[in-house]
Amino acid sequence: MTTSEQIRQTVERNADRYQETLFRLLRQRSISAQGDGVEECASLVAETLTELGIDSRVMATAGFPVVFGEVRHPDARETLLIYGHYDVQPPEPYDAWVSPPFEPEVRNGRIYARGAGDNKGQFLAHILAYHTLVELGAAPALNMKFLIEGEEESGSTNLGGFIREHRNLIAADAVYAADGPMHPSGRPVVFFGLRGMLTVEVRVRGANRDLHSGNFGGPVPNGIWRMVDLLQSMRDDEGRVLIDGFYDDVAGPTAFEQGLLDAIPFDEEAVKENLAIAYFDGPPEAGYYEKLMFYPTLNLQGIGGGYVGPGKKSVIPSECIARLECRLVPNQTPDSVFRAIERHIHYRIPDAVVTAVEGTLPSKTSPELPYSRAVVRSVGEAFGVDPVVMPLLGASGPNFLFTDELGLPAVWTTYANADEDNHAPNENISVDAFKRGIVASARLLTDLAASGALKDRGDT
Amino acid sequence: MTTSEQIRQTVERNADRYQETLFRLLRQRSISAQGDGVEECASLVAETLTELGIDSRVMATAGFPVVFGEVRHPDARETLLIYGHYDVQPPEPYDAWVSPPFEPEVRNGRIYARGAGDNKGQFLAHILAYHTLVELGAAPALNMKFLIEGEEESGSTNLGGFIREHRNLIAADAVYAADGPMHPSGRPVVFFGLRGMLTVEVRVRGANRDLHSGNFGGPVPNGIWRMVDLLQSMRDDEGRVLIDGFYDDVAGPTAFEQGLLDAIPFDEEAVKENLAIAYFDGPPEAGYYEKLMFYPTLNLQGIGGGYVGPGKKSVIPSECIARLECRLVPNQTPDSVFRAIERHIHYRIPDAVVTAVEGTLPSKTSPELPYSRAVVRSVGEAFGVDPVVMPLLGASGPNFLFTDELGLPAVWTTYANADEDNHAPNENISVDAFKRGIVASARLLTDLAASGALKDRGDT
Repeated sequence: MTTSEQIRQTVERNADRYQETLFRLLRQRSISAQGDGVEECASLVAETLTELGIDSRVMATAGFPVVFGEVRHPDARETLLIYGHYDVQPPEPYDAWVSPPFEPEVRNGRIYARGAGDNKGQFLAHILAYHTLVELGAAPALNMKFLIEGEEESGSTNLGGFIREHRNLIAADAVYAADGPMHPSGRPVVFFGLRGMLTVEVRVRGANRDLHSGNFGGPVPNGIWRMVDLLQSMRDDEGRVLIDGFYDDVAGPTAFEQGLLDAIPFDEEAVKENLAIAYFDGPPEAGYYEKLMFYPTLNLQGIGGGYVGPGKKSVIPSECIARLECRLVPNQTPDSVFRAIERHIHYRIPDAVVTAVEGTLPSKTSPELPYSRAVVRSVGEAFGVDPVVMPLLGASGPNFLFTDELGLPAVWTTYANADEDNHAPNENISVDAFKRGIVASARLLTDLAASGALKDRGDT
Repeated sequence: MTTSEQIRQTVERNADRYQETLFRLLRQRSISAQGDGVEECASLVAETLTELGIDSRVMATAGFPVVFGEVRHPDARETLLIYGHYDVQPPEPYDAWVSPPFEPEVRNGRIYARGAGDNKGQFLAHILAYHTLVELGAAPALNMKFLIEGEEESGSTNLGGFIREHRNLIAADAVYAADGPMHPSGRPVVFFGLRGMLTVEVRVRGANRDLHSGNFGGPVPNGIWRMVDLLQSMRDDEGRVLIDGFYDDVAGPTAFEQGLLDAIPFDEEAVKENLAIAYFDGPPEAGYYEKLMFYPTLNLQGIGGGYVGPGKKSVIPSECIARLECRLVPNQTPDSVFRAIERHIHYRIPDAVVTAVEGTLPSKTSPELPYSRAVVRSVGEAFGVDPVVMPLLGASGPNFLFTDELGLPAVWTTYANADEDNHAPNENISVDAFKRGIVASARLLTDLAASGALKDRGDT
């Protein structure tokens, strides 16, 4: 079997060419939020796939196109679907960039450009891994599919529609993706799911109009006070949510996942100092990472009523608006949590206006699957250090399309350095991380082909 | 003694001249908020006083000038200080006026112009009352002083400074003023004081910056939730304020005042329907007007934190701002209430930023004074109907300068029709109300001169 040393040497030998391939992608603008260069980038990604030996096509969605690539191996019995995105965040403010965001430049061992880490440098690693193995004469006995979308930075609005429409085309045994930065300790991260999300807007009213607080102050209800009383009824003093049914579907960590939680490095004092907080919110019986991964949140994204600007406005405000946000954990659904919240509010204030703004399902893959373990092993070997293994990230995203819509295991990792500054000026990926990412993907492809782990669902 | 009938006939005989005198004032812009025509109007008011037989001068303040007028009577043993204001609200939106705001016009028995009711048509009534009595050969044996300021619509910012600087000049035995609209029933209002006011800005913080609600949601405190918990600790379920010491200095109504409260016409269902509210706020043991006059309020003028605009912002907001407003009742002071609020907040959130934005003392004159009763009588006689007598108005203003700074009884009434639309387009005063106001002031001056009630402090 192909050794990691052989893979490393081949990547080193091709280093200049691989970097130039990345540079060509980075030079192409692809700002989905601004509709700037996105289609051109899709064509370029497809071209790149083809050049590297992977059949590819640009496929329409209701928004920006998806690039689909495919490699079939005559001996393959399993298929890996690789996900990534070619669109990037807006680069503003331009002034804050040392070198222009779409003119990639290497400084101090890092490649600086918008999209270097998020996500061009990471999805390209998988493609180059395949090329590396072919060069070694060791193409893995695996079918590979590439799904590189162009709307991730704009909420992946049309990914669900695309996946449902092309279910057969993208059929696979598992999903793999690399996105995001490594742990601050420098160790890569492997994670197995995301929290879901539910955003709810609540409008509560006192009188039917703002009133002079002198002429009416005392007997007339104030919309903000009603909102304060309503919100306060939703949490106890320690931050437990009091909404009936809110925790009903919460699965909680398995014993294995609890072990992973306990192993995540955590410097409580450093976190408190960095955020300038004196205490942690939420039930004291749960740890930091348990709250972040296995406790649904009831966050207040915003509140607004009356006037708090310069000067003054002596009114009894009529209306108060609050934007509630729940991060959902396995096995909650946005629908059932919304109904619980709505019931809680309407029981207290029947005429409150309660609207679901947005819902995303949580997603989780078992970290005990052979495929999951293979990822942890490959990434660890490529980077020379054990990854930080997280059952879930606290954030949300379209991963449920893979886990729930397609019913596939989906495992994520991070190939970019911790200080990649994704979404910020001077985004970068270190040359070393870029090359190690290629090695990690090649290692994984080789191991999966050899082990047959992709189809193995035994939770041992 | 001069009869009301004699007074009425003289006012009727002079009606055209008096209306033209008012029109001249109304044609002169005097928008203090926009600095438009204010000094010119001061000169015109002084001219008007002089023409009508009252010594006058324009006196500087740190802002717009005060017009001071004075009449001495050789037999007078008492002095009445009459307060009013010659500045007006901005007239915007101009388009909404049927006739231009500074081109007075009579339509359907009403004089339409900015300032017609608020306050040119009302302060002029006192001046014309003196002229009427002189014409009748019945100048009252009373010294009269006129203090007509030019900043009332901008918060009377410099009235306190003026009064403290010219204490001897304005020395008097009591204060009289007419401002505001009559009761919706068409009866004039007589009132004896105002609530005070305290505005407090509170800033509460979670972490030191807004944080990604996915990456940090759960363990990290949210500034809005902290504010909600803080605010909710300030009130019980029925709206009683729980801040220690908040009610300490509250005097409550006297038996006489309670009698007045009970006599104020109140249609509970009409008020609820008009405001579209299902219940009244505040302790159920207190009535509507008791809450409006003798209960301090803890109003929320505004609250703001995070983001509630279009789109979404998935953050844990760092900061939340609330603007608290207390309407204060006799004998509370802004200072002591501020200290109670500050203590309450800092006990719970030591690093909350608590700032007093503004403070105004409450003010009250006994409605049992002979002077107070004389006003009720004169106004009732002039308008042919018993006034609605209110111990206090719920609103706030500089009246404490007279009652507390100068230690004088101060009684207020309303000469403008209930639908005067002060502060709004098409402001007006009915010709009838304007003339009855003159009669009421003349009646009062005559009665005060005859009775010596101004110096009589016996509360019987």
